Amino acid sequence: MAIDEVPGSVGTTTSFSLRMGQAIFSSASLLFMSLSAEFYSYTSFCYLVTIMGLVIPWSFTLGLVDGYSVLFKCPLRQPGLLLIIIIGDWVLSILTLAAASSTAGIVELLLKAGGSICPPKICRRYLISAAMAALSWFLSMASSLFNLWLLPSLL
Amino acid sequence: MAIDEVPGSVGTTTSFSLRMGQAIFSSASLLFMSLSAEFYSYTSFCYLVTIMGLVIPWSFTLGLVDGYSVLFKCPLRQPGLLLIIIIGDWVLSILTLAAASSTAGIVELLLKAGGSICPPKICRRYLISAAMAALSWFLSMASSLFNLWLLPSLL
Repeated sequence: MAIDEVPGSVGTTTSFSLRMGQAIFSSASLLFMSLSAEFYSYTSFCYLVTIMGLVIPWSFTLGLVDGYSVLFKCPLRQPGLLLIIIIGDWVLSILTLAAASSTAGIVELLLKAGGSICPPKICRRYLISAAMAALSWFLSMASSLFNLWLLPSLL
Repeated sequence: MAIDEVPGSVGTTTSFSLRMGQAIFSSASLLFMSLSAEFYSYTSFCYLVTIMGLVIPWSFTLGLVDGYSVLFKCPLRQPGLLLIIIIGDWVLSILTLAAASSTAGIVELLLKAGGSICPPKICRRYLISAAMAALSWFLSMASSLFNLWLLPSLL
């Protein structure tokens, strides 16, 4: 099976859009979290910021590689490199899911506690941040699965 | 590749121990969570209880299938059934991870809030419950990966 037959694998336009989506969603998550200056008082929020800080350069770099492959028609065909990308995507998607769900759990608790602990305006930002992280997780998992699908044909 | 060459796939003793481990850890998680009668006031804790209620019968049933396969020497060799098991394991492991991390996030917040909101004795139970759920996630993911490894040889 040729690489071009697997949509979403490294070096295709689908993969490029997935990577850009990941970078955009994780940047939005990081931005909405950092906009409220009190995020460092909750461990989960700090964790989310850390993970997003890892996901953004990873997705952006792989997005650049995809863009390069598409523009100059030289797809990546090394199983070793593909394996590193799959494992990296997979680990990052697990970490992102954990960060998103722990953030969502805490935001739900803060929303229930009411305005005295967390003003609605700030709480809504936390909520948007958690939702963006969840979307980033979804795209990251999709990338990982598409590449995993491609791997056996290269070995 | 024969089925017996892939350790941890359906119908081997390793798989049987993985399933029993999952069932034991998720039961322990459910038990420690239910021991404190106030768990229903937190959405994440209710979510954890729901997911554990799904994981326990799933792991226990598959554990029985494995035990049967090992005892009567008739391994499961149907790709369709294996695919259902892989997808089920995978979905349940994602749900378990989300439940475990949101519980852990909230427990961390409650521990920081101090004794007035959450007595240390109760909080410690929540913490043990989250840790057990994380262990159950780990074993469930291992099962899913082992079975995924087996799948291409059956197709």
